[in-house]
Amino acid sequence: MSLSIKDDEIDIVIGALRPDLTSFMNEWRTIFSRFHLIIVKDPDLKEELKIPEGFNLDVYKKPDIDRVVGTSTSTIFSGYSCRYFGYLVSRKKYIISVDDDCYPAKDNKGILVDAVAQHITNLTTPATPFFFNTLYDPFTEGADFVRGYPFSLRSGVQCALSCGLWLNLADYDAPTQALKPEERNSRYVDAVLTVPARTLMPISGINIAFNREVIGPALLPSLRLGGEGKFRWETMEDIWSGMCVKVVCDHLGHGVKTGMPYVWRNDRGDAIASLRKEWEGVKLMEEVVPFFQSVRLSREAKTTEDCVAEVANVVKEQLGSKDPMFARAAKAMVDWVKLWKSVGSST
Amino acid sequence: MSLSIKDDEIDIVIGALRPDLTSFMNEWRTIFSRFHLIIVKDPDLKEELKIPEGFNLDVYKKPDIDRVVGTSTSTIFSGYSCRYFGYLVSRKKYIISVDDDCYPAKDNKGILVDAVAQHITNLTTPATPFFFNTLYDPFTEGADFVRGYPFSLRSGVQCALSCGLWLNLADYDAPTQALKPEERNSRYVDAVLTVPARTLMPISGINIAFNREVIGPALLPSLRLGGEGKFRWETMEDIWSGMCVKVVCDHLGHGVKTGMPYVWRNDRGDAIASLRKEWEGVKLMEEVVPFFQSVRLSREAKTTEDCVAEVANVVKEQLGSKDPMFARAAKAMVDWVKLWKSVGSST
Repeated sequence: MSLSIKDDEIDIVIGALRPDLTSFMNEWRTIFSRFHLIIVKDPDLKEELKIPEGFNLDVYKKPDIDRVVGTSTSTIFSGYSCRYFGYLVSRKKYIISVDDDCYPAKDNKGILVDAVAQHITNLTTPATPFFFNTLYDPFTEGADFVRGYPFSLRSGVQCALSCGLWLNLADYDAPTQALKPEERNSRYVDAVLTVPARTLMPISGINIAFNREVIGPALLPSLRLGGEGKFRWETMEDIWSGMCVKVVCDHLGHGVKTGMPYVWRNDRGDAIASLRKEWEGVKLMEEVVPFFQSVRLSREAKTTEDCVAEVANVVKEQLGSKDPMFARAAKAMVDWVKLWKSVGSST
Repeated sequence: MSLSIKDDEIDIVIGALRPDLTSFMNEWRTIFSRFHLIIVKDPDLKEELKIPEGFNLDVYKKPDIDRVVGTSTSTIFSGYSCRYFGYLVSRKKYIISVDDDCYPAKDNKGILVDAVAQHITNLTTPATPFFFNTLYDPFTEGADFVRGYPFSLRSGVQCALSCGLWLNLADYDAPTQALKPEERNSRYVDAVLTVPARTLMPISGINIAFNREVIGPALLPSLRLGGEGKFRWETMEDIWSGMCVKVVCDHLGHGVKTGMPYVWRNDRGDAIASLRKEWEGVKLMEEVVPFFQSVRLSREAKTTEDCVAEVANVVKEQLGSKDPMFARAAKAMVDWVKLWKSVGSST
């Protein structure tokens, strides 16, 4: 891990959707125990959390959320969106967030992957969004820029977001899971790459890290499906937030990386039972992708907050009338920027 | 390899810059011997070629080139550009081309890589240039589209070009080689990915394959450096041609893939001695990249030939006055399209 980053510049945010975190925390112990953890309990979860000893952590439950944002706002943090509360109350420069059904993965050689170290390396080395390097991340040890890569672009730009991947159960949608129930991802791709500018992608919230000071307000809970459930494939909040982050990063000239680190993702949920709900999210993308591909922000949008507010306006104007879900998302984005500013300045 | 492709739909084109191809051919024998080979001898090379027995091949030398294109045109095929003559006279659907200092690579598990099979798989499965799939090529066995990937984009588009990579000596420029003489690429990245639309990249000609019927005329010898030599890092013909191909593919809606297969690239040449020459190519990219990023073709450009002619016109208009090299490249591109049509229709 980059020597210039101190452990206390990092918060690890865990959204607890299941009450018993014992095996999750114990599996991650060697990697997580040096860092401060923020655990946010899904406000819909009734049972008491079980968390093993030996960690430096703060736990936030429904009463804590209500106290900080008010009872009317606290509903935005239900389900997988609970982790956004952790992003809101963190005061650290870097945030790493991993779903509570993921465990540390092993690399090609059978060595345990330190996902925190890899995410921090991704965030603290430059990104290269303006020209594609065929040998992937030129800042990885043993790699470099290939012949023909312009020298003026080799210093790169700041990396704001690092998207990790998944071994075993990959982040497929319910139809894919239902169609290929036996499909497991066993391909460990030993690479990190910058997603090119103006290229959009479905960013999964399962295993991500970001520079909170740079891009924090753009990771937000705003798109909530009507039948949103407690399985990943029943949610789209991260995909929507990810499109927003990427558009903001492209506008502000920040980079987004994808690839390593991997986490090992365990099976849970019944994909076939989720199919009915999922189609809503699946159909949504047919509108959402062309929309975000067409969004261009103004020169006046100079901060992440400005950018999110502008995206919210365009969402309202162009998608608002198509589905009330989009109108609600636009409002939630505007509210989030206000909340970010007020919670940030109040502490 | 895709069962629907017959061996006789493929030409393997080798540009011979060194006279003794014995070890090169023998190393590739198990992979190449099923296919027809076109060997084009660098017209500047004086010594007789040494080629081992047991291959189905045609060899083209300077007199053959002169006969087909005329003595005044044949100079465009000197040095690394000799392989373009093979592209011109081939009548096959697919072309695979590997530099004569490359040998078959081994994968992560120590298994010999069949570069031909991988290139053909890349070319015969769809490409997905309009949205990035975080698990890389969704058509690889065991992979799929991730959650959030629009279903309407999952059928993809035709792949026109497959760019392979290099183990051992990577395709670095002379300054990088000179600065890091010990640097060798040992990272085998088990992935193929579609380079997103409107993302440019430095395409290396060392290890490539393409659909000749779809994109053939866009692979062309046109940019020749003043001090071009007989080492890869002294050339830019492939980088220039690659920018042209990518712009044409983006315009026509074809895909470009990069990643596997790897080849093992042997050391040769003295990078420090090449430094003086290389800076010319290195400086060039500072103009060439922004130029190609800004090129937009008209709706009237419906064929690859149309597109190349349009690119040539813009090169002449926008770059022609900056350096006579660009003016010559523009003319060479126009000439190439004519040559492609005349040679294609004459046989």
